[in-house]
Amino acid sequence: MSQHLSRTLLPRLNPLACVLATTLALSASLSALAQTAAPADGKKAVTPAEMNYQAGGSPLAGEPMYQSTNPKAPPMTQAEFDRARQIYFERCAGCHGVLRKGATGKPLTPDITQAKGSDYLKVFIAYGSPAGMPNWLTSGDFDEKTVDLMARYIQHDAPTPPEFGMDDMKKTWKVIVPPEKRPTKKMNNYNIANIFSTTLRDSGEVALIDGDTKQIINIVKTGYAVHISRLSASGRYLFVIGRDAKINMIDLWMEKPDNVAEIRVGLEARSVDTSKFKGFEDKYAIAGSYWPPQYTIMKGDTLEPLKIVATRGMTVDKQEYHPEPRVASIIASHYKPEFVVNVKETGQTLLVDYSNIDALKVTTIGTARFLHDGGVDSTGRYFMVAANQSNKIAAVDLKEGKLTKLIEVGKIPHPGRGANFVHPKFGPVWATGHLGDETISLIGTDPVKHKDSAFKVVETIKGQGGGNLFIKSHPKSQHLYVDTPLNPDPKLSQSVAVFDVKNLAKGYTVLPIGEWAGLTDDGAKRVVQPEYNKAGDEVWFAVWSAKNKESAMVVVDDKTLKLKAVIKDKRLITPTGHFNVHNTQHDVY
Amino acid sequence: MSQHLSRTLLPRLNPLACVLATTLALSASLSALAQTAAPADGKKAVTPAEMNYQAGGSPLAGEPMYQSTNPKAPPMTQAEFDRARQIYFERCAGCHGVLRKGATGKPLTPDITQAKGSDYLKVFIAYGSPAGMPNWLTSGDFDEKTVDLMARYIQHDAPTPPEFGMDDMKKTWKVIVPPEKRPTKKMNNYNIANIFSTTLRDSGEVALIDGDTKQIINIVKTGYAVHISRLSASGRYLFVIGRDAKINMIDLWMEKPDNVAEIRVGLEARSVDTSKFKGFEDKYAIAGSYWPPQYTIMKGDTLEPLKIVATRGMTVDKQEYHPEPRVASIIASHYKPEFVVNVKETGQTLLVDYSNIDALKVTTIGTARFLHDGGVDSTGRYFMVAANQSNKIAAVDLKEGKLTKLIEVGKIPHPGRGANFVHPKFGPVWATGHLGDETISLIGTDPVKHKDSAFKVVETIKGQGGGNLFIKSHPKSQHLYVDTPLNPDPKLSQSVAVFDVKNLAKGYTVLPIGEWAGLTDDGAKRVVQPEYNKAGDEVWFAVWSAKNKESAMVVVDDKTLKLKAVIKDKRLITPTGHFNVHNTQHDVY
Repeated sequence: MSQHLSRTLLPRLNPLACVLATTLALSASLSALAQTAAPADGKKAVTPAEMNYQAGGSPLAGEPMYQSTNPKAPPMTQAEFDRARQIYFERCAGCHGVLRKGATGKPLTPDITQAKGSDYLKVFIAYGSPAGMPNWLTSGDFDEKTVDLMARYIQHDAPTPPEFGMDDMKKTWKVIVPPEKRPTKKMNNYNIANIFSTTLRDSGEVALIDGDTKQIINIVKTGYAVHISRLSASGRYLFVIGRDAKINMIDLWMEKPDNVAEIRVGLEARSVDTSKFKGFEDKYAIAGSYWPPQYTIMKGDTLEPLKIVATRGMTVDKQEYHPEPRVASIIASHYKPEFVVNVKETGQTLLVDYSNIDALKVTTIGTARFLHDGGVDSTGRYFMVAANQSNKIAAVDLKEGKLTKLIEVGKIPHPGRGANFVHPKFGPVWATGHLGDETISLIGTDPVKHKDSAFKVVETIKGQGGGNLFIKSHPKSQHLYVDTPLNPDPKLSQSVAVFDVKNLAKGYTVLPIGEWAGLTDDGAKRVVQPEYNKAGDEVWFAVWSAKNKESAMVVVDDKTLKLKAVIKDKRLITPTGHFNVHNTQHDVY
Repeated sequence: MSQHLSRTLLPRLNPLACVLATTLALSASLSALAQTAAPADGKKAVTPAEMNYQAGGSPLAGEPMYQSTNPKAPPMTQAEFDRARQIYFERCAGCHGVLRKGATGKPLTPDITQAKGSDYLKVFIAYGSPAGMPNWLTSGDFDEKTVDLMARYIQHDAPTPPEFGMDDMKKTWKVIVPPEKRPTKKMNNYNIANIFSTTLRDSGEVALIDGDTKQIINIVKTGYAVHISRLSASGRYLFVIGRDAKINMIDLWMEKPDNVAEIRVGLEARSVDTSKFKGFEDKYAIAGSYWPPQYTIMKGDTLEPLKIVATRGMTVDKQEYHPEPRVASIIASHYKPEFVVNVKETGQTLLVDYSNIDALKVTTIGTARFLHDGGVDSTGRYFMVAANQSNKIAAVDLKEGKLTKLIEVGKIPHPGRGANFVHPKFGPVWATGHLGDETISLIGTDPVKHKDSAFKVVETIKGQGGGNLFIKSHPKSQHLYVDTPLNPDPKLSQSVAVFDVKNLAKGYTVLPIGEWAGLTDDGAKRVVQPEYNKAGDEVWFAVWSAKNKESAMVVVDDKTLKLKAVIKDKRLITPTGHFNVHNTQHDVY
């Protein structure tokens, strides 16, 4: 794919991915409403919202909200308002924010939308834009009436969804196996450090796969579209969080590893991690929510919610109040008893000291908007986080607790956790790919022995194209793998580029992972997320097909770059992200 | 006054005081709107809201907001809604909160008000309640139509007032005399350590009074109803904050001390202080706002706003999100480079480390709701703050950065900064009076030599009655003064009780301060706030009459408890709080 094409086509992919995620997650929540139970006899009546929570459904239903009487906004009936509100939350909020202040998508507050007018808005909603707005009419998702409805709705004041405080969380909290009934030693023969946790996106599950035998150990019920898997410091407990803000805690010591606790921490979420500092191993878990904008600290062995902290506050640039600063990535420092919490809309990185949660100490480091994902450098001292609308990486010094540098990179950086390797000339570097262009930016991370190149882009290499989500390397490997699952060209989205980190000038080798999977079905299959095994001599990929099509995991031999194994199973429905226990536990990437 | 009477009558005084304050403050702001200037030719058009800010007016006007279409709420026209919104902000918000979540007054959200119904609400608004709700109809403030209007209004969703971010602040910021044009040494012969800064409440001024000669040095224009005066660490700069959130900075080195800088930090505010830790003297100022709920750190020599931090977050008890956690008192630690910020509605005490404001470190200590005012013990290590609706004092250890104890006291503690003295039996104690009863609670503050009595109420003494606002002592005095300005009995509100701290059992002596003032006018004159001079051998009181009546300052000889001086001047309009430079600067009380 030419650079020109990638520059014009690719910026729309990121928003589309978000829309897709939000739409599907909420549909799942809504379908769960059908299971809502009648209140039990003789018990305190539960509200519709509570019933929804209990059923795992959208707490939006059952909470009446009303349109404004702003005379400039076209009139709507209450029924229309309610329907539009639900559609907005499902389809639009992921990019524009539930309060419509804008993030990946543009702001849609009444002062802006009313100035545009209904006709303009309808065209935009119907046909989309090259900047990333989906074509809701021509895609078949909306009919003409729905387009008109949404054009009217967004000219009214945005209603605020319900909060989700301690009481709400406790209602969703379940300890399935209490700590005292759990095994006191590992009860299975798995090499648990080499287990992979693979998100089965559309089925609301994760697959635990034995990295040694490539056999599925268990399929575990989780929240919808698990965004990430994280390990406790000891490596015993696996934590996963769905986009519907449901956290599951899996005990890998059980004969058949399975859920031991669960909770919901909001209506929408992306991030979970655990305390990793010496003395606090397995003590706390933390999760960040998109809505309400807050993070929650929980007991590490039961998910009991202990402390909720709101993230609503001032933006880093203009110091204006933002009502919806969503928590993007969270990482646990190995240097201090701190969680690193990245707040998207305000562009603030929070260092949350958990050594005394009754006197929580939070350092707020202004970085850049809008913060997304990131990882640590090879030493664990520097946290590198993408500010995707600023096209910047912020390097935060976790030892000194301050911003080291803001570094300009390519268009819409999306590192995942990034990739660390030793560059022949510049020493240790951390690398990120980009959603919006085909470049990979290599940033020096050694201010001691490579001072001149530290926290600068020392080299920019070109991959196959834009639409990259994840890049990966390993201390025992000399390769750098770069996926392109969101590239519109199927050749690119179904293959992966591999660089030799000792000879980057040589360019990349293309591995036809999608082809190697040998799937018989036609249709889009996206190759997602290179992930090394514990030894660093295999790299795993998900080959992600539609829900009703066959998917697979493909394992590559890192030395030879040849196909090593294909894992197929009818239970492997829409595999996307996958995480190796050892590498995730120790931040090896 | 009997204990019975005080218990039934006095709880309503605190809300009434709040209502009075809010009403008057906003009326002043609104009258300032009349001065709104037309946009200057050739300049960027300013919005009505901006013009209001510039005129020092209420930024509420000119910001259109709309009622909800909640079908259970009685209908209103847009004009009615706008009028009711303005009345609510002026008369009701001080107690009930602008978002009506409740504080000193009850919550008034639509779920509650609709259940009560219009008829019930109208009776309540018209006739008030013994629990503190004013009788708006029978007092003559509202007519029948306004009562009906407000009863309908509070059944609609509460509209949110505008935010006040960095851009808004910068528009109100004025450096009247830049640092480089200020004196390099003291240019007057005043003993500035013994100057008193006296709030002239209704005229929007402070009087600077020479404590040695009792002469007025200057009358300085300020915000409306200055709530407190605070000193910079060096004692050179005096900072005052009006209830309209306007801060004035006065240079005491000038030949005639006067304003050198000013700013507004919101729409309503109560607290200001300055950095006092070694190395940070005179470097920063901080102010806390009621609306928007936030605090602002400014440059100590110019009031340039540097950092705004929102306080919206979780309540200490239920961990529910609160949209309007107002900043009550702020104090500067002498132990660490920290401001102690008390957040009323959430019951959280924040230790704001200002040593690096680009990486602001905030420790959140859960205390109790609703936090109000407080001061440090005699060592400066323990901060004692009133949670007035919990009837508790929270003792916060500023050295260790943690809660030491929550202590049950009397009804609605209102310490001001409290009073420190050495109890013959229990050693160092800190004392608070109460709005809601006649008691004074003495709390032990010496965990080293008086461990058994530390952070316990060691003795409760009885004053003249409830309605106490301030109590005061001094290291060089053996007296404890207790005012009762909000007691409905004029005998009590116009006199003061004095205890001998070496013989508390003896009871109190009554000083007829109001009588000593020798004011010819009839009408209410309340005696407010004992304040020592620097030497600790005089105690000053404000005798606060109505705006159109004569007021005075009365000075008492502390040794003899005799009248020493009466200060009268036609410019001393509604004197209320007053602060001695030395004692305020060094937290001597």
